[in-house]
Amino acid sequence: MTTNQLVQQIKQKKSFLCIGLDVDLNKIPQHLLKEEDPIFAFNKAIIDATHHLCVAYKPNTAFYEAYGIKGWKALGKTITYLNEKHPEIFTIADAKRGDIGNTSTMYAKAFFEDLAFDSVTVAPYMGKDSVEPFLAFKDKHTIMLALTSNQGAFDFQTKTVEGRELYKQVLETSKSWKNSKNLMYVVGATKAEYLADIRAIIPDGFLLVPGVGAQGGNLQDVCKYGMTDAVGLLINSSRGIIYASKNTDFAEAAAKKSEALQKEMELILNQ
Amino acid sequence: MTTNQLVQQIKQKKSFLCIGLDVDLNKIPQHLLKEEDPIFAFNKAIIDATHHLCVAYKPNTAFYEAYGIKGWKALGKTITYLNEKHPEIFTIADAKRGDIGNTSTMYAKAFFEDLAFDSVTVAPYMGKDSVEPFLAFKDKHTIMLALTSNQGAFDFQTKTVEGRELYKQVLETSKSWKNSKNLMYVVGATKAEYLADIRAIIPDGFLLVPGVGAQGGNLQDVCKYGMTDAVGLLINSSRGIIYASKNTDFAEAAAKKSEALQKEMELILNQ
Repeated sequence: MTTNQLVQQIKQKKSFLCIGLDVDLNKIPQHLLKEEDPIFAFNKAIIDATHHLCVAYKPNTAFYEAYGIKGWKALGKTITYLNEKHPEIFTIADAKRGDIGNTSTMYAKAFFEDLAFDSVTVAPYMGKDSVEPFLAFKDKHTIMLALTSNQGAFDFQTKTVEGRELYKQVLETSKSWKNSKNLMYVVGATKAEYLADIRAIIPDGFLLVPGVGAQGGNLQDVCKYGMTDAVGLLINSSRGIIYASKNTDFAEAAAKKSEALQKEMELILNQ
Repeated sequence: MTTNQLVQQIKQKKSFLCIGLDVDLNKIPQHLLKEEDPIFAFNKAIIDATHHLCVAYKPNTAFYEAYGIKGWKALGKTITYLNEKHPEIFTIADAKRGDIGNTSTMYAKAFFEDLAFDSVTVAPYMGKDSVEPFLAFKDKHTIMLALTSNQGAFDFQTKTVEGRELYKQVLETSKSWKNSKNLMYVVGATKAEYLADIRAIIPDGFLLVPGVGAQGGNLQDVCKYGMTDAVGLLINSSRGIIYASKNTDFAEAAAKKSEALQKEMELILNQ
């Protein structure tokens, strides 16, 4: 998918919501456990109920890997279902991968070819040659961790490196990498005030923003500091939407939560 | 596996060799492609020929994920074969994972419980709460990236943070994390002179050292600067061993390469 297609979708749906499909069998409605594939059954119900309200889905691969082959199959069925039923939706494999060159190419093949996601999240620690193999894939997007929304972000990301915070160094350095136009960045919403600084470095690129709601981020503030002419934001919510109810009405409850966020986004887009 | 058991094995085998099982179907002997599971057939032959010469095996998960379910199954068969036939051998899932707390726990379950590896590699960028969930598992080991052997290591890892290089900051900071005794570190051998500095920070912990041979590192130098009383080193070789021959004699050729390294290690241990 091209960035333009993503922007078009945002304008049509008046939404820049991304729904995180982080499926934990201990948290989904227990009546689903008798399904042949409870993880996929849960995802399908959530997708069917929310696809008109969001522009992206983001399964975090950890939740699938924890269930071994069964989980990996459910991930495969989920991405295939999305690509067949809703090809206009942007798909993110939240995998936080990264390795030396030839190995990163294998990861890129796993997520861009075998599983056919539109994008994958990567970690920056190993530098340029660990990320460029992902960037080489046409019309695929690589979403690099910059400033994450967890407490541990303050251990290294915000430490000063050559006069500025490491995450800013990561943003600046990555702009010189080959095919850097295929980069997006993860920026936690718990620090909305940082978004102005980030936009000074990355004026146009898309930012994937977790941590609105549950982790304390405020949507208005994020948009105030982070929004571009082409929107440039994907706001992720996972648990707040998919676990809105633990009962048989879980999909409707997820839709209701998604709609509330979409309406808030529509207001902001119309401003 | 406890660290003591690993040290015992090193002393018995007079080897601290780790063999990287990075299986690329384009590189393995082509007669294996007619096997039902060529990846596992290749690994089994390598393990059968080399298990007495090494103390650890390290499949890099990227190579398995690139083949989807088929690859994930081959990885499962490989670790099960190792645990059943050679339970004394230390197993490393080279996965370079890391995410926020509850998500890292899912990754830890994937590699320590579902696949039953002794250890997993992780990335440090997201800090303490992204690594501690791995450290909570008893007799399991978490091998954190510190200084990697690729060119991109110079993009961020060697940049100065609060008076010292980022990788040293990572090493120092991690010592205060809960259950830090379960930490080991990845340190590239291409910079053997750095090992003295690293040992000043981590005097006892195990270091997993890639990059000896193919990437230019020298075993004598690595041992001179990095070895402890309890050895404290695992030297990894992947392509140099497993692709020593592309013909039907590939397993014997791998054993020959492994034996050459083991003999060199025996000499060093006897010094």
